[in-house]
Amino acid sequence: MSLITVGTMAFDAIETPFGKVDKIVGGSATYVAYAASNYVQPIYQISIIGNDFPAAEIDALKNRGVELEGVEVVPDKKSFFWSGKYHLDMNTRDTLVTDLNVLADFNPIVPEQYQGSPFLMLGNLMPKLQLSVINQMKTRPKLIVMDTMNFWMDIALDDLKEVLKKVDVLMVNDSEARQLSGEFSLVKAARVIMNMGPKYLIIKKGEHGALLFHEQHVFFAPALPLEEVFDPTGAGDTFAGGFIGYLAKTEDISFDNMKRAIIVGSALASFCVEKFGPDRMKELTKAEIDDRINQFVQLVNFDIDLV
Amino acid sequence: MSLITVGTMAFDAIETPFGKVDKIVGGSATYVAYAASNYVQPIYQISIIGNDFPAAEIDALKNRGVELEGVEVVPDKKSFFWSGKYHLDMNTRDTLVTDLNVLADFNPIVPEQYQGSPFLMLGNLMPKLQLSVINQMKTRPKLIVMDTMNFWMDIALDDLKEVLKKVDVLMVNDSEARQLSGEFSLVKAARVIMNMGPKYLIIKKGEHGALLFHEQHVFFAPALPLEEVFDPTGAGDTFAGGFIGYLAKTEDISFDNMKRAIIVGSALASFCVEKFGPDRMKELTKAEIDDRINQFVQLVNFDIDLV
Repeated sequence: MSLITVGTMAFDAIETPFGKVDKIVGGSATYVAYAASNYVQPIYQISIIGNDFPAAEIDALKNRGVELEGVEVVPDKKSFFWSGKYHLDMNTRDTLVTDLNVLADFNPIVPEQYQGSPFLMLGNLMPKLQLSVINQMKTRPKLIVMDTMNFWMDIALDDLKEVLKKVDVLMVNDSEARQLSGEFSLVKAARVIMNMGPKYLIIKKGEHGALLFHEQHVFFAPALPLEEVFDPTGAGDTFAGGFIGYLAKTEDISFDNMKRAIIVGSALASFCVEKFGPDRMKELTKAEIDDRINQFVQLVNFDIDLV
Repeated sequence: MSLITVGTMAFDAIETPFGKVDKIVGGSATYVAYAASNYVQPIYQISIIGNDFPAAEIDALKNRGVELEGVEVVPDKKSFFWSGKYHLDMNTRDTLVTDLNVLADFNPIVPEQYQGSPFLMLGNLMPKLQLSVINQMKTRPKLIVMDTMNFWMDIALDDLKEVLKKVDVLMVNDSEARQLSGEFSLVKAARVIMNMGPKYLIIKKGEHGALLFHEQHVFFAPALPLEEVFDPTGAGDTFAGGFIGYLAKTEDISFDNMKRAIIVGSALASFCVEKFGPDRMKELTKAEIDDRINQFVQLVNFDIDLV
């Protein structure tokens, strides 16, 4: 089994209450690849980088079964750069710098080798580019999952709505769900958004877990209560990668299996925040992941007799 | 089986984005009694009211097995009055008016008839009065559950800490847990607070559910995603009443049974917010409660095979 992931590969500068890094590898496609490759290989990556992306990072991805034929290398430009500072609650952050660099010219091409892959993860990116990738697929993937953010709702809402018509699963956070739907209640918001196209909606609530909506059904996945959140950068992309990676591995896109996939995504995201950037994801073992999934099982496990 | 509940019986004036009421019955002990009486009777109520508390409300409580011998009636004063206005997110509110009235002279007395009751719910109240009730018990109850709020942390922290040494379960919300412990991480906060006395800590997170901590264990109970939260007043007290009511009914104070009790409390609280004041609690049927508990089971139910 394989999956295609489209998104950014970038450098981040991050400041949290626990420390700072001036330049660390990041980007939505990077985090998706690290997370998903725990479950399925190859990962067919589509992205764009400049002349400054370290060979060691490329090798590290290749060693995890990440195919990079769809990653354009621009020899005379720098990679996308983002800098942000997190507040104490870690749920809010200020963007300090956004240098698009190579991203300004990004025109994703789906290589012939990638065609026929049944799972497509559209990482957070300009909606027009997400749409372009969908339209290049000769066979519609079995499952298209889309991440996005408030920024695109502000400046490219019409494009975003076009993509929404063509995807199966949308992932947004709670404030984005409210913005997109115009509804404060997440239950009402979910109904409005599912009418825009996606049959499944995942609303991410950070430390408060995530909700999965489908038709009249709703599933609530907790977040693991953590002693420390060191750096939340990439947690959402890691969640996405774990989610689609598990679905691709199990080849089951039922609602019940999506519940499991959300637990897997949550477990992986809980590791991501333990260190700066993707550092924790690089060293993660299967045994650690399974152990953490079991912690999630214990966290919400109860049986009840009605009395 | 029986339980004792200590707290306020009051009038509230409430304004929410959905409407307002000028005078509706409220108070922590009122909500606890309505919730707990679905599971156990008699409820031994300890509170204080003025000459204005409606006979019909007294009768309604009596009809649910609430004993009022411990409720002092002050003939020449008014009942406690609270007025508040909720913001759009319903998680924050402004207190507009607090008229203590009879509450200023409250000196709770545990009637002889109440002695020996194995479950004690200390509703949100001045810590000195909570302590007085504990000290009046000739036999220590099997389980003492305490609710409190940030107000008492601000003005009566030493008293509060004295009570903490004598209770089994403390319930606070997330910001109160942070204030009481001085820790931002709820996992660290829980450890600090359990060192102050309570062996069990419940951290309520409103629409984000609740956490139960005990030793190294943690359990996460979701809140039901609701289309509309009409009025959150009393939801925390209703949660408390459902929690202790279920424990008293089942006579089981194990960690596993507390998980079930939290689900029951969450289910009852999800009804409470559907109408102003305790109106929804008054009309609630057993079938409705059981149906909602099943919704909670479905909400978090998953099975996972490690792959």
